Amino acid sequence: MDKKSTKDLEVSDRRDFFKKTAALGVTALAGTSLVASQDDNAIMHHPKWGQVWGDPVTKNRYGMPSAYEHNNTRRNTKLLASGNYRASIAVTPIHESEGIITPNGLFFSRAHGGTAQVDPKEFRLMIHGLVEKPIVLTLEQLKRYPSVTRTHFIECPANGGQEWRGPQFNSLQFAKGFMSCAEWTGVYIKTILKDLGIKPNALWMLAEGSDNSEMGRTVPMDKVLDDAMIVWGQNGEALRPEQGYPVRLLLPGWEGNLCVKWLKRLEFSDEPWFAKEETSRYTALKPSGKAIQHFYANEVNSTVVKPSPEKPWTDLEDGTMIEIEGLAWSGMGTITRVDLSFDGGNNYVEASLKGLVLPKCWTRWSYMHKYKKGEKLLLTSRSMDDAGYIQPTVNEEVALMGVESIYHRNGVETWEVNEKGEVNHVQIRS
Amino acid sequence: MDKKSTKDLEVSDRRDFFKKTAALGVTALAGTSLVASQDDNAIMHHPKWGQVWGDPVTKNRYGMPSAYEHNNTRRNTKLLASGNYRASIAVTPIHESEGIITPNGLFFSRAHGGTAQVDPKEFRLMIHGLVEKPIVLTLEQLKRYPSVTRTHFIECPANGGQEWRGPQFNSLQFAKGFMSCAEWTGVYIKTILKDLGIKPNALWMLAEGSDNSEMGRTVPMDKVLDDAMIVWGQNGEALRPEQGYPVRLLLPGWEGNLCVKWLKRLEFSDEPWFAKEETSRYTALKPSGKAIQHFYANEVNSTVVKPSPEKPWTDLEDGTMIEIEGLAWSGMGTITRVDLSFDGGNNYVEASLKGLVLPKCWTRWSYMHKYKKGEKLLLTSRSMDDAGYIQPTVNEEVALMGVESIYHRNGVETWEVNEKGEVNHVQIRS
Repeated sequence: MDKKSTKDLEVSDRRDFFKKTAALGVTALAGTSLVASQDDNAIMHHPKWGQVWGDPVTKNRYGMPSAYEHNNTRRNTKLLASGNYRASIAVTPIHESEGIITPNGLFFSRAHGGTAQVDPKEFRLMIHGLVEKPIVLTLEQLKRYPSVTRTHFIECPANGGQEWRGPQFNSLQFAKGFMSCAEWTGVYIKTILKDLGIKPNALWMLAEGSDNSEMGRTVPMDKVLDDAMIVWGQNGEALRPEQGYPVRLLLPGWEGNLCVKWLKRLEFSDEPWFAKEETSRYTALKPSGKAIQHFYANEVNSTVVKPSPEKPWTDLEDGTMIEIEGLAWSGMGTITRVDLSFDGGNNYVEASLKGLVLPKCWTRWSYMHKYKKGEKLLLTSRSMDDAGYIQPTVNEEVALMGVESIYHRNGVETWEVNEKGEVNHVQIRS
Repeated sequence: MDKKSTKDLEVSDRRDFFKKTAALGVTALAGTSLVASQDDNAIMHHPKWGQVWGDPVTKNRYGMPSAYEHNNTRRNTKLLASGNYRASIAVTPIHESEGIITPNGLFFSRAHGGTAQVDPKEFRLMIHGLVEKPIVLTLEQLKRYPSVTRTHFIECPANGGQEWRGPQFNSLQFAKGFMSCAEWTGVYIKTILKDLGIKPNALWMLAEGSDNSEMGRTVPMDKVLDDAMIVWGQNGEALRPEQGYPVRLLLPGWEGNLCVKWLKRLEFSDEPWFAKEETSRYTALKPSGKAIQHFYANEVNSTVVKPSPEKPWTDLEDGTMIEIEGLAWSGMGTITRVDLSFDGGNNYVEASLKGLVLPKCWTRWSYMHKYKKGEKLLLTSRSMDDAGYIQPTVNEEVALMGVESIYHRNGVETWEVNEKGEVNHVQIRS
C-alpha cells in the first residue's frame, strides 16, 4: 500500500507532461487548443497565493465576494435615475448570474423615497379594516405564524420599459436587469386571516409601506387568498433593507411595486383604493388613449444571457461547442418551453430547460451551438408558460399596446452576433 | 369611483381603532394578547425612518444586511481553532437560517492554511494522469463546458464531533453549524472526461488545492462518474474565496474536506493516494483500535432549529400555538421522513417536510405545538433517507463507534426545554 503521494510528481515530470500536452495539440470539448506555456508552468508550481498564509477563517464574520469580482455589481445610470437616486432603481448584473438564485447583495432595488432603515424593535404591522379581529403585531409575533419558503422572481413592470421604441441599452444588465430571483420565507396572508377572520364583504387589501413615500397599493382578495405572503427571510437570512427589512409583501409573479416594502399596514375593504401609485403611475397607456389600470402579473418573458453585449464571443475559436444560455420567467405560472432562433425569429429550435423548473420563478434554459468563426446571427428567444401564454413578436405587441406604455413589455428580444463575435442589442420588427 | 385614500384614516380614527382592538382582547393564532400601546401608536404614525430620506439605491452596489442584524454572523471559538485561526473553522448561525439556502456571507468556512486569494487570470486547472488527452484549462475555458446547477449541502465530517462524550456547546451554531447549503453551478467532471477520454484502468482521482496547504484528497471513480462537479457559481454569483474561488470540487453529500477548494489539479490513477488528509486526518478511530479510512458520505442526520439554545421559548405565553422547526439532511440521498419526540426519544410523532425536498440537500421540517407554560420537554428529532438509513440512538452509535472518533457523528440530538422556556443541549443515553 505504498502509494505515490501528491508530492511525487516532481517538477521535471510536470515539465515532461507539459511538453507532451503541447505535442498532442490537445483540444477541449470547447474546441480550444490548449498549449501549456511557461506561465502556466509557473502558476501551477508556484501560485503566489499558495506561498503565503491565507486569511484567518474569522477575518470576515460576514463574508464578501473576491476582490477580483469588484465589477459584478448593481448599477444605475442617469437614464434610470429621474434626477434623484432615492427614487430610482439599481439593476442586477444578470449577465453574471448563475442558476436561479440572485445573491442578496446583487438583488435589484427600486425605491420611491430611498432605502428606509427600519429598527426591528420599533416595527409594527397593523392588520385591520374588514376583519373580525384587527391586530397590531410585533416582528416577533408575526414570525410565530407557521412559515413557508418559496422561490420566486420579483420584476419591476418597467423592466425593458425604456425600449418600446427600440433598444436604448446595449447591455443585458440595463435592458433586463430590473428583476432578480430569491428564496423567500414568510407567512401566507391567508394563514393570518384564518386566525383574524375575514368579513364576507372584504374584496380588496391595501398594503402600505412605512418608508417616507408611504408606498400604497391595492390587491384583490383572490390573490391575497391564493399565494400572497408577508416575507421576512431572503435566501436564508433576514430580508435586506433594500428589499423592505424587516418585512415586505410578496405577490408571486406580480409587479414588484405591488410587493410593498417596509410594510406597516394591511387594510381590508370592499372597494379598491386607487392610490397614487395605481393612478398616476403603474398604468399602461394604450394607443386608444385609455390606460390599463390594476395591471398585475408580469407576462411570460425570456432573454438570452450568454452571449450578450457583456458576454461576447470575441475570444471563441472556429468550431468551438458553446452553450447558449438564457432565462425565462412568467408571473402567470410555470415555464413549459423555450425556443431559440438564429435568424431573428423566422425559424426556431427548442431549447432545454435546466435544473429546477418552478412556478413564477426564473427558469434557466440552454442550447449547445457549434460556433463558426465569422458567422453572423440574430439570437431571439421565445418562452411559453402553463397558463397557455407565449411571448409576442415586437409587431404583435406594438399593435396591441402602441409605444407609449412604460410597463409590461414582453415582446421577444434579439441580440445580433456580428462577424467579430461582438454582441449588440437590436430590434427585429416582425 | 371616489375611494378613500390611504391618508383618510386620520390619527383620531386610528386611536379609536386601537381602543377597540384593546377592548376586544385580540388573540393571535400564536396565542399572544395584543394590546396596542402608546408606543405602537407613535411607531405606526411617525416611524422615525419614515420621516427622513432613505439611502440612495446606488449607495451599495453590492448590498449588505441591515445594521440591526449585526449579530447574525459566523463564529469561532478557541475550542475550534487549534490555536491557529488559519487552520480552523468559522461556523454558520443555523439558528437564524430560513429555507434551504445559506447566504454566501454566512456559509461555514474551514481552511487548512487560511483563505487563499486566487487571481482568476492566473488560475489554471490541470487534468492529467490516466486520461487520453491531458489538459491545462484557464478559468474561461473551463466555464465553456455545459454547466449544471444543483442545490446541495456541504458538511464538515467533524460537525458535532466535539461531542461524542456529551454536549460541549450549549449552542446550535457551535453544535451543528459546520455545514451550510447552497445552489452550486459548475460542470460535471464526467462531461469533461467524455471530451478528454478516461483510460480503463483509471480507478481513483486525486484532487489538489493551490492553497499553501496543498490540500489533497482521493476520490473513487464511481463518485467521479456519478455526480462530482467542478463548481464556480454559488447562489447565483462567483464562488466566494472562502469556498475556493474561483473553483472547488463538489462531491454532493460527501465530507466537506473532500470538496477540495482553490482547485489546481485532478490526476487519475489506478490506485488511491493515501494523502496526508486521508491518513493522519479524516479517519475514524473505532473501539477495536482500527480506523475507518476513505470515509465519504455524511450520514442521515437532523436537528431541531427552533427552539434551540439561541432561540428559546422564554417569551411564549401559555397556550401559544408554535411551530417547532428543524433541518434534516443525508449525504446518501433524499430525506423521506422526520420524526419528533417530546420525551427524549421514547415516543415519536411524524413531522411535516416543508418546501423543496431535494437529494443531498437540507430539508426543512416542522411540527405545530401548543405550548403549555411551565412544561418540561426533551425535544429529539430522527430522520430517514431514501437509501434506507435512519439516525441511530446515542447508545447505538457509541456501541458501534466508541467515543474516540471525531467524525461522522449522526446519533440523535436532544434539546431540553425547561419550565422557564430556556433550551439546553443535553444527551440522552438510550
